[in-house]
Amino acid sequence: MPTPADVWAAFDAMRQQGPLVQNITNYVAMDLSANALLAAGASPAMVHAREEAADFAGIAGAVVVNIGTLSPSWVESMHDAARVARERGTPWVLDPVAAGATSYRTKTAAELLELNPTVVRGNASEILALAGAAGSGKGVDSTDASSAAVDAAADLAGRTGGVVAVTGDVDVVTDGTRTVRVTGGDPMMAKVTAMGCAASAIVGAFLATADEPLLATVCALAVFGLAGERAAVGSPGPGTLRWRLLDELYTLNERAVISGVRLS
Amino acid sequence: MPTPADVWAAFDAMRQQGPLVQNITNYVAMDLSANALLAAGASPAMVHAREEAADFAGIAGAVVVNIGTLSPSWVESMHDAARVARERGTPWVLDPVAAGATSYRTKTAAELLELNPTVVRGNASEILALAGAAGSGKGVDSTDASSAAVDAAADLAGRTGGVVAVTGDVDVVTDGTRTVRVTGGDPMMAKVTAMGCAASAIVGAFLATADEPLLATVCALAVFGLAGERAAVGSPGPGTLRWRLLDELYTLNERAVISGVRLS
Amino acid sequence: MPTPADVWAAFDAMRQQGPLVQNITNYVAMDLSANALLAAGASPAMVHAREEAADFAGIAGAVVVNIGTLSPSWVESMHDAARVARERGTPWVLDPVAAGATSYRTKTAAELLELNPTVVRGNASEILALAGAAGSGKGVDSTDASSAAVDAAADLAGRTGGVVAVTGDVDVVTDGTRTVRVTGGDPMMAKVTAMGCAASAIVGAFLATADEPLLATVCALAVFGLAGERAAVGSPGPGTLRWRLLDELYTLNERAVISGVRLS
Repeated sequence: MPTPADVWAAFDAMRQQGPLVQNITNYVAMDLSANALLAAGASPAMVHAREEAADFAGIAGAVVVNIGTLSPSWVESMHDAARVARERGTPWVLDPVAAGATSYRTKTAAELLELNPTVVRGNASEILALAGAAGSGKGVDSTDASSAAVDAAADLAGRTGGVVAVTGDVDVVTDGTRTVRVTGGDPMMAKVTAMGCAASAIVGAFLATADEPLLATVCALAVFGLAGERAAVGSPGPGTLRWRLLDELYTLNERAVISGVRLS
Repeated sequence: MPTPADVWAAFDAMRQQGPLVQNITNYVAMDLSANALLAAGASPAMVHAREEAADFAGIAGAVVVNIGTLSPSWVESMHDAARVARERGTPWVLDPVAAGATSYRTKTAAELLELNPTVVRGNASEILALAGAAGSGKGVDSTDASSAAVDAAADLAGRTGGVVAVTGDVDVVTDGTRTVRVTGGDPMMAKVTAMGCAASAIVGAFLATADEPLLATVCALAVFGLAGERAAVGSPGPGTLRWRLLDELYTLNERAVISGVRLS
Repeated sequence: MPTPADVWAAFDAMRQQGPLVQNITNYVAMDLSANALLAAGASPAMVHAREEAADFAGIAGAVVVNIGTLSPSWVESMHDAARVARERGTPWVLDPVAAGATSYRTKTAAELLELNPTVVRGNASEILALAGAAGSGKGVDSTDASSAAVDAAADLAGRTGGVVAVTGDVDVVTDGTRTVRVTGGDPMMAKVTAMGCAASAIVGAFLATADEPLLATVCALAVFGLAGERAAVGSPGPGTLRWRLLDELYTLNERAVISGVRLS
């Protein structure tokens, strides 16, 4: 079981190294993902053209693939980049946004799953849809409690050989054997678009500079949730929350992390 | 004539139901539109790929089509989604951004108009261009006063059988027979990009949960304008205004709506 | 050597005229670029479809081409718009984002350079890559000090017959003969995505309303840097900095410009 001190050590190492994180992500999430990566200390690159996606995956420290806004040419780039990442042992994250909502989305996510993502991060509906269980997907918002998807996550992790994270009120991270719960965040975070996508991007940054995917994922989600939780204090609404979250990712220090992170 | 109490009732009903609103909108507007929908209480989905746009229109409570950043494949998706919406009786909104500025834009907007949008929302230049009158379109900013476009709006509503809203200093909403004016907002709102697009998205949310398109449009624009007006108080500039608007959409309560909305 | 009074005069003239600036820019930068242009007093249009890019370049006061997120059809639009701009004597700006990072990017930037951009604005890595010198490009962040790229910039300006600006701790602007340094900004600006892209957009606005490209570029960068410098005061992190920068672009007055701008 990782400790808050482990979280701080992983965060500090990431900030020191400032890893280059390639994102093939949706149009809505690009802004928040890039800004969250910069604020946290990483170096984002939004590179998705088929002409360069594979090239870039060869120099990135991690690759984040997010299917939020899909088109056939982007799906090809996602495959190219994920394939290069797998071949080179570069960690890559799959964010199966709204899997289950349309057949195109579910099929795309399932095909990417074949390329063994280091980490899959989604909400309960998305993880259930991916695992083939019956989710009640309604757009990109989760309508299932995270806990209901825990079995599906473990099953999925068994299939990919990687880590699966189900985020929600409590985040559950599993590699099929070990399971860690991260408590934190704030319900108002669900009122800001692309929060989950930004969390996936931060997972990518931690994966790039940590040896162990389960630990990296737990640490990333703990830091992101803590930043959101702190940002929500005194925020009248989601507009304020969004920019304060970036300030928190930038200013979080050892004391705040050690005293604020809650793992179980 | 709707009353401020009607506006509150429509807003409250929308928040209770949290409708799923599909947006095929421009790259610049996606962020603000999605965040405005979330803050107001709806559930946004940005789904525009031809492979899934029609599918998704089948499950959405409303569809918002915005031609701000065009490409041929997106235009096809717009037609697909609008056609499904029309067939199923799902309300859909057309936002003819910068119609009149290039022939491609004017042609695209005119073709979508054939699919009988439930509501068309634009500024005076755009509505004039769409109605075939001579606008002096200059990018996406309106250079005609809203009032000049009122006749064009009524004419357009007669052609589509739907509602047409001309937004500006005063918003004018008409179904060709009845006309309602919504006073509110703040001039600084014009200094934030995609404000009109976000207003269109909010119209979509209200359409999804109201029976009557004219009423829904008036209520949506009244709520959006009030949020902007309140957000502008004490804002030194458009940067602050933008996030405060989201906070206001999230926190607006009955008292604020009843005392703040001005219809005539 | 321009004076702070020249900067104010150019800014004031730009605000009076509110030029229409066409941007073919990347997905991440669209939001901040459009909002920065609006806040500063210009009229942005994000028009990149091949069906209308050339048309629109014919009516724009300036064209800004940014290769941040590339795809083949957009590259064609970039060429179309730049060609129209050159033919008509409309100023156009090239922002060679991450040139040097992939061969696709470097090749695209080099080809656009053949169309004689009025201004090229990049960080040191990008300018070095473009000039054929050896940059150590790492994503979109600069890893070379601006000063190292000054020779490359002068060389490049000689080749295009235009102006080249290398932005960093100190911005260096040259037409190959004259060189002006602009001191300002804040290191935290590098923690907000698309800041450089927004600076390029503002250069476009000033070019549209000034006679002299070197002066226009110096004035634009001085105003943008000053806005960022003032926004950083008291900002706890990059989230706050971003919206305050927009407020500053909107509120900057003669006194602030005269007392704050530092040129050498």
